[in-house]
Amino acid sequence: MGQCIDALTSAYLDFSSGAAVTRRRSDTLVPSGESVYGLKTMDGIAPGLGVGAVRINSDIVTWPKVGSSYRRVKVPAAPGSRYTGLILVFSTETGEPLAIMPDGVIQRMRVGATSALGTDYLAKKEATTATIIGSGWQAGTQLTGLLAVRPEIDTIRVFSPNRRNVKAFCAEWGGKLSQELCSVGSVAEAANGADIVLCATSSIDPVFEPKHFEKGMHVGSIKPPEISRSCLDLADKVCVHLGQGKPALIQADNLAVPDHSGDRGWQISDAFDFSSCTTLPDLISGVTNGRTNADERTCFVNDLGLGLQFAVVAGVTLQLAESAGIGRVLPTELFTQIEHP
Amino acid sequence: MGQCIDALTSAYLDFSSGAAVTRRRSDTLVPSGESVYGLKTMDGIAPGLGVGAVRINSDIVTWPKVGSSYRRVKVPAAPGSRYTGLILVFSTETGEPLAIMPDGVIQRMRVGATSALGTDYLAKKEATTATIIGSGWQAGTQLTGLLAVRPEIDTIRVFSPNRRNVKAFCAEWGGKLSQELCSVGSVAEAANGADIVLCATSSIDPVFEPKHFEKGMHVGSIKPPEISRSCLDLADKVCVHLGQGKPALIQADNLAVPDHSGDRGWQISDAFDFSSCTTLPDLISGVTNGRTNADERTCFVNDLGLGLQFAVVAGVTLQLAESAGIGRVLPTELFTQIEHP
Repeated sequence: MGQCIDALTSAYLDFSSGAAVTRRRSDTLVPSGESVYGLKTMDGIAPGLGVGAVRINSDIVTWPKVGSSYRRVKVPAAPGSRYTGLILVFSTETGEPLAIMPDGVIQRMRVGATSALGTDYLAKKEATTATIIGSGWQAGTQLTGLLAVRPEIDTIRVFSPNRRNVKAFCAEWGGKLSQELCSVGSVAEAANGADIVLCATSSIDPVFEPKHFEKGMHVGSIKPPEISRSCLDLADKVCVHLGQGKPALIQADNLAVPDHSGDRGWQISDAFDFSSCTTLPDLISGVTNGRTNADERTCFVNDLGLGLQFAVVAGVTLQLAESAGIGRVLPTELFTQIEHP
Repeated sequence: MGQCIDALTSAYLDFSSGAAVTRRRSDTLVPSGESVYGLKTMDGIAPGLGVGAVRINSDIVTWPKVGSSYRRVKVPAAPGSRYTGLILVFSTETGEPLAIMPDGVIQRMRVGATSALGTDYLAKKEATTATIIGSGWQAGTQLTGLLAVRPEIDTIRVFSPNRRNVKAFCAEWGGKLSQELCSVGSVAEAANGADIVLCATSSIDPVFEPKHFEKGMHVGSIKPPEISRSCLDLADKVCVHLGQGKPALIQADNLAVPDHSGDRGWQISDAFDFSSCTTLPDLISGVTNGRTNADERTCFVNDLGLGLQFAVVAGVTLQLAESAGIGRVLPTELFTQIEHP
């Protein structure tokens, strides 16, 4: 996590100076039986690491109705009930393919590292109490990212309506950290007196409301709907990852998709305009200040992912895997050719 | 070639009806020493074949000055002096990866098959004499594509300023075909009395001029600059592959690229507007007529490639490879995961 945060910091500086580049995600969609087939791609080049990367998701998606809204659910339809998500890493020096890796672990690592950077620039330096809302897959790297940038934190509370998940989460991470994880019974209890609140849920409705938003608090989110519009209005500073908006959508005419947001299915009736917010590269390059006093309420919204993030985190992962001798070696020439393409 | 032409025909019909989709090529560029590193991607889904595909080129590109203009040259910088171009094929039913294949042979096949479709709709049905201008890599599938749609052709002339290439080309293909290939000394000689002229050169200047353009002749081109502007103006019908224009360009600020066309480096001072031309899907779906009489001069310009073409030709190739037991089998689970991406 520490290496990913450092490498992402350099990459965002390169992005600010125009040296690193990224292509906005595109989603190409057709019907597949009763479901939808989606081919989702994004590209990025991290010159500091000497790598370019393409991230590909090949998804079977259904849209079950949950309450009054539709939720986007990926189906593990590949053999063995598995998902298909890949990152291909290439050398910017020779063009050759360096690695192919599944994207699941990398995806969660880049979300955690990016949220951690938001926290580092926006939360109080002397923060000691933090809260994680959510206890699923994404909550893990919100936690490790947080502790990478605020190692002095000694009290960590976790809230999730799923009691079994919370228990498993606290047992798993409590065993790995010197800090104790304390499961609490409500968002109110979790937020009360916390310096930092990090939302890491799969909710399509707001989980964090103004009544929880105390003076001096920093609130992070892994996707826009988690923090209510009125919370964002209450904040002294709202920063966003890059404010790119939605992915580019290319879809078949005969597609039955209940929601066209191109993402997890949320509907934001009173959407906040993130396009004019300070971005993470702005914060890192010093174009805009982060927190300037102990009383500010701050928010960081980790919106649409970037190909550049995948180039960085996959590049770091490749270095570590090579050092550790992990991975299966395939002949490079299987993936190169003599024909001029 | 015949199977590729048939499968492409179905895919263009699906594209016309909105059932097949394709994402326009994007080129992401950064400096790489004295050269440029380019990560070029395009996606497409061919529902008829049940496959989606991502085509990736990871190129080291230099821009040597040739005469008064700059030419884009890809350097085979991967180990063993090889190029890196890949097509990943996925199942639209399960999302799983089905194949990874180099793009060079597929690329040339899709160009030839697409040009052949243009020829089929625009050239005289009773054509007997054809000319290929150029004798390099691309010329091969222009020839086989042509004979797939006009098998009655009995006279084939080949012209290229590179005499050694022409000789090798005529020897190679002459041995495979029942028709004789006849090498000629000039474009004028090659075109004189020909029903069909197919340009397949790497030239960035026009090779075909109005003085060669006889009544009733069909002229094809694998890229816009080959046919001069005045030829296009002279034509009764000019059709284009899809008229998508240039690829989406995302480039680093510190990039020294002499020409920003995003393609092979041509400069068209008096550019023809292809955006309002009839497209190949229009011809195939019958939205627009092809040739309507024996006297028309027709042109087909095979512009920017499509992810959809790669999905189709790679899908057909995969079927043939599976039938023939060709290829190296890798475990699917190396390329799938249990983690939700």
